[in-house]
Amino acid sequence: MAETIADVGEFGLIERIRDGLPPAAPGVAVGLGDDAAVLDLPGPVVASVDTVVAGRHFKPEWATAEDVGHRAAAAGMADIAAMGGRCRALLVALTAPADTEVAWVTGLLQGIADEAGEVAAGVAGGDVVRGDTLTVSITALGTAERPVLRSGAEPGDIIAIAGRQGWAAAGLTVLSRGFRSPRALVHAYQRPAPPYDSGPAAARSGATAMIDISDGLLADVGHLARSSGVLADLDSSLIPVADQLSETSSAFNVDPLMWVLAGGDDHSLVATFPPGSALPSMFTMIGRVGESVGNGPGVAVDGRQWSGQGGGHDHFR
Amino acid sequence: MAETIADVGEFGLIERIRDGLPPAAPGVAVGLGDDAAVLDLPGPVVASVDTVVAGRHFKPEWATAEDVGHRAAAAGMADIAAMGGRCRALLVALTAPADTEVAWVTGLLQGIADEAGEVAAGVAGGDVVRGDTLTVSITALGTAERPVLRSGAEPGDIIAIAGRQGWAAAGLTVLSRGFRSPRALVHAYQRPAPPYDSGPAAARSGATAMIDISDGLLADVGHLARSSGVLADLDSSLIPVADQLSETSSAFNVDPLMWVLAGGDDHSLVATFPPGSALPSMFTMIGRVGESVGNGPGVAVDGRQWSGQGGGHDHFR
Repeated sequence: MAETIADVGEFGLIERIRDGLPPAAPGVAVGLGDDAAVLDLPGPVVASVDTVVAGRHFKPEWATAEDVGHRAAAAGMADIAAMGGRCRALLVALTAPADTEVAWVTGLLQGIADEAGEVAAGVAGGDVVRGDTLTVSITALGTAERPVLRSGAEPGDIIAIAGRQGWAAAGLTVLSRGFRSPRALVHAYQRPAPPYDSGPAAARSGATAMIDISDGLLADVGHLARSSGVLADLDSSLIPVADQLSETSSAFNVDPLMWVLAGGDDHSLVATFPPGSALPSMFTMIGRVGESVGNGPGVAVDGRQWSGQGGGHDHFR
Repeated sequence: MAETIADVGEFGLIERIRDGLPPAAPGVAVGLGDDAAVLDLPGPVVASVDTVVAGRHFKPEWATAEDVGHRAAAAGMADIAAMGGRCRALLVALTAPADTEVAWVTGLLQGIADEAGEVAAGVAGGDVVRGDTLTVSITALGTAERPVLRSGAEPGDIIAIAGRQGWAAAGLTVLSRGFRSPRALVHAYQRPAPPYDSGPAAARSGATAMIDISDGLLADVGHLARSSGVLADLDSSLIPVADQLSETSSAFNVDPLMWVLAGGDDHSLVATFPPGSALPSMFTMIGRVGESVGNGPGVAVDGRQWSGQGGGHDHFR
């Protein structure tokens, strides 16, 4: 029988977790094992929390424990990047049934620590409690020399995207239809690869607003536009559709642009830059900020304002 | 019918939450509504996360939504105090069934914000997701000029306590037996009152180690002692037993010292100070640090080492 949390107890589990983690990251002065972590975070601190729930945000049959760790950590770390920040430390709050296998938990933490390692961040602390539903809340903490908010976009600004977009949605479609390939798309769903360095690069290049795409490109650019009081006018001919998406879409009878426009979970970054800006190399222009007119602030594609249906999701409806 | 989260949706709920929160606290430069909060946290940052689960950490019939908010916030804020720090900001990760009443959620946030207000901290961000079990994870963030760890106690040091201890356990006993009074004890269980100022005061007075009492006095002092590699020798004649506890204990046929020694959830603070220290006014001496001998590091009461049974709890056994 595989060893469960009930077998080793809370403190035993914490010991296993601690033993499996890499040595402390540069930003972590005091890590696991005290009342709180002590962090070295010079300058403005940026902080975000994201929760994933088993059966809703991940299906155990579609994602290993390591995958879940990567995805959960990436969600929080992308939020830090979207502020123009660098993630330094993560806190992990795990709620788990007593019959959860210890190996699942250590796998989860391995995935989290590996994802954090992408930017030399570390797991600095956490909490483990018993509950009926496996739930992982990750707090991401970092620093941003010049925080970039959602609210700074101005008419005339360039809208640009960095990172893969639509891949996770395509991977989810593939899995939902019972397939395991194309492997690259499935992997993109299981382990998103947010363009972490693009966030600080955008901030240095004068980005006026930025957001990470977690609910869908249209939905999240809509959030940015409404925060800024502008119309974000996307040009579908400029929006990159990767060859992998086009090739797979025909087999699944899907318009690949829908994956790109409505798909979340890739944690690509969309930023706005003053007109005439030299974009950081990872960014591709996809549209232009316009004045909010008629229907109010929001997002348009090829001049037609999007109504808010079908391009994102609200977890409670 | 009372309005539920399903009625207003995720974004509607977040709007209600935002509308109900007080204006931003001094440490919160950017609060709810962006990808991440931006915080002004000069000096070493201390960070902790605590989770409470409905049915396990609170019973809805014993605690209002506001009470749950106070308790959950206090747990994290006490961790910051136990590092010698001051809490500046909280992040709230809420997992809730779609049929949760909006009023319950806004009550929860009210309780959290009120508790944060005790130290002029603010709710800076959060996440709301759907899940079968009401679960609240709170990340507490603060600063500590001189972080005080669990591991610095030295033989000869004075062991001292600040804050109410045993009250929450007594209140839980009262509720468990179907009573609603003494009100002061029930209230102590519903809304602990950690001695937040005592943490930084202890740090300024040269505290060598500190911990907050959340799992039980013996259990948590045991953690401090093992981290420090010492024997914490408590003197039962010095341990304060409040009159309210003594008076109530006879009616419930309980030894009030057991509430004090085994009770958690008050989030009192235990600190060690070099011999001869003038203790901060809120601290009362309860014992002395000795060399670890024979049975190894741990906690003793009146010279008899405690075995680790019956004085704390492990959530998974």
